[in-house]
Amino acid sequence: MTINETVQILRDNNNFLILTHIRPDGDTIGSASALCYALRKVGKVAYLYDNPQFEDSYPWISEPYIAPADFAPKYIIAVDLADQGIFPKGFEGDVDLCIDHHPSNTFYAKNTLVWPEKASCGELVMEIVRELCGLDSTVADMLYVAVSTDTGCFVYGNTTGDTLRAAAELCDAGAANTYLNKILFRTSSKARLALEGLIFSSLRYYSDGKTVIAIVTKDMLEKAGTGEKDCQDIAALPGRVEGAFSSAVIKEVDENHCKISLRTNGVVSANTICGKFGGGGHKMASGCSMDKNCFEAAEILADAIAQEYE
Amino acid sequence: MTINETVQILRDNNNFLILTHIRPDGDTIGSASALCYALRKVGKVAYLYDNPQFEDSYPWISEPYIAPADFAPKYIIAVDLADQGIFPKGFEGDVDLCIDHHPSNTFYAKNTLVWPEKASCGELVMEIVRELCGLDSTVADMLYVAVSTDTGCFVYGNTTGDTLRAAAELCDAGAANTYLNKILFRTSSKARLALEGLIFSSLRYYSDGKTVIAIVTKDMLEKAGTGEKDCQDIAALPGRVEGAFSSAVIKEVDENHCKISLRTNGVVSANTICGKFGGGGHKMASGCSMDKNCFEAAEILADAIAQEYE
Repeated sequence: MTINETVQILRDNNNFLILTHIRPDGDTIGSASALCYALRKVGKVAYLYDNPQFEDSYPWISEPYIAPADFAPKYIIAVDLADQGIFPKGFEGDVDLCIDHHPSNTFYAKNTLVWPEKASCGELVMEIVRELCGLDSTVADMLYVAVSTDTGCFVYGNTTGDTLRAAAELCDAGAANTYLNKILFRTSSKARLALEGLIFSSLRYYSDGKTVIAIVTKDMLEKAGTGEKDCQDIAALPGRVEGAFSSAVIKEVDENHCKISLRTNGVVSANTICGKFGGGGHKMASGCSMDKNCFEAAEILADAIAQEYE
Repeated sequence: MTINETVQILRDNNNFLILTHIRPDGDTIGSASALCYALRKVGKVAYLYDNPQFEDSYPWISEPYIAPADFAPKYIIAVDLADQGIFPKGFEGDVDLCIDHHPSNTFYAKNTLVWPEKASCGELVMEIVRELCGLDSTVADMLYVAVSTDTGCFVYGNTTGDTLRAAAELCDAGAANTYLNKILFRTSSKARLALEGLIFSSLRYYSDGKTVIAIVTKDMLEKAGTGEKDCQDIAALPGRVEGAFSSAVIKEVDENHCKISLRTNGVVSANTICGKFGGGGHKMASGCSMDKNCFEAAEILADAIAQEYE
């Protein structure tokens, strides 16, 4: 489908319910809220499905749009949902329109608008909103959250000229990028910073620094006072070290069991290495478990990685 | 001066020497190298002044353009140099053209092109290079370094729609933004990460968490193995804590002397607080010294900040 066809469908229907994915991130929430806001602006009835995990992520965006329990939708839209495996419960087979940017989209909806070359779903929703009612500062804020969070503030490898141009257009439309960047990228909880402190001050180096391993024990998590939310993306932290080819976070589950996240720069395959321990994933990011205490696991993993360097 | 007038001056002259500022950053080095490359591309003789601090910052950009000792320039250009106080030695009064983006530019050169609304000098040099010879991927890389480093990868408050659009144009012209972002923003030295670890695991909180103070002792610097380069911008680190109104880094000079960098969110004035101890600066970023050991200094500073909250 094209943008114009999608906009026409939106104009022709009413009583929209918009779905976001499980473990909602800035892109699904920002995109869905922006679409909801724009539909209301052109006189439609529109709500977001009450995702039970909204309160963990950007509740200040989604809150005004959450559907009451008795809302009876006539048209269901899924935003940033590549397949029904990451659906909120009870909507399988019911989606009228899916708007997404994942190449892996499974075309489960009656109508699908998918642009896999976009870094974020927000860029796609921006095109729709621009046609539907134009960009104002409220919708620009929501879309800026979508675009910036899916690209780590334009630092990740998915960022293209088009991504930056979309962000420029949102800033021109009044997105409060300075304020949003401060909240989204320059603020951490006390517990998160304490955990980062413990991780960075106890990194282990192997193979002349080509391998960096962080061990995260239950004791460290307790000492830092962390909850689940404070541990997001910790797998990426040790990879920041200069000269690292491979980096891993080993998280203690109990005394003789641990979970491992391995990242590589592609010189060796994380998938091959994790495969040796019954795990797997992608070439540059994989995972596995070991029935070992985490300090033993670090030695075993470092040896397995060293063999791959040879 | 306009871009066109500047380009005409460049076309009418030859044997250019391009100056960068002391403690050169990505903006001065990226902008100056890009200008040098473009001048050579249109057949001119052009070199960068051999800034003795080049090797500390992005030597891979500047290296091919450094002037030999016997080069006799006919036209001297200063790039990103707001005033002669940050000049390399020996060029006071000699600059023919200054290209800059600082509002504080003192108009010391014979000709000055200053656009204070630009986040980086790179955006201004981009306009010149586009007119002079067009953007190619080599010059786009240099200018991307300039624009991205001066905005912390588009996260700082100086980032505007124009900044993002300039970056988009550079990506379109072939800038290797993924590779450059990895080097510039996603890689730290072992020593830097170890120091961040020590800082984040020993933050001190005052006034119900509104004040966050990091103490950096000589012992910590030694333990982390840090050099001067690893300590860049550490003043910004404690301000990442959620809920912080004021944040300070207190750096031990010796047992009874320390240097303080204070940042605030503007609710209280860093300048007023540092002024109480003989220092000063701006409302949101100031500095001072105390003849105290750093742990005493933290208590004294926290009290002074608390008084301002009242």
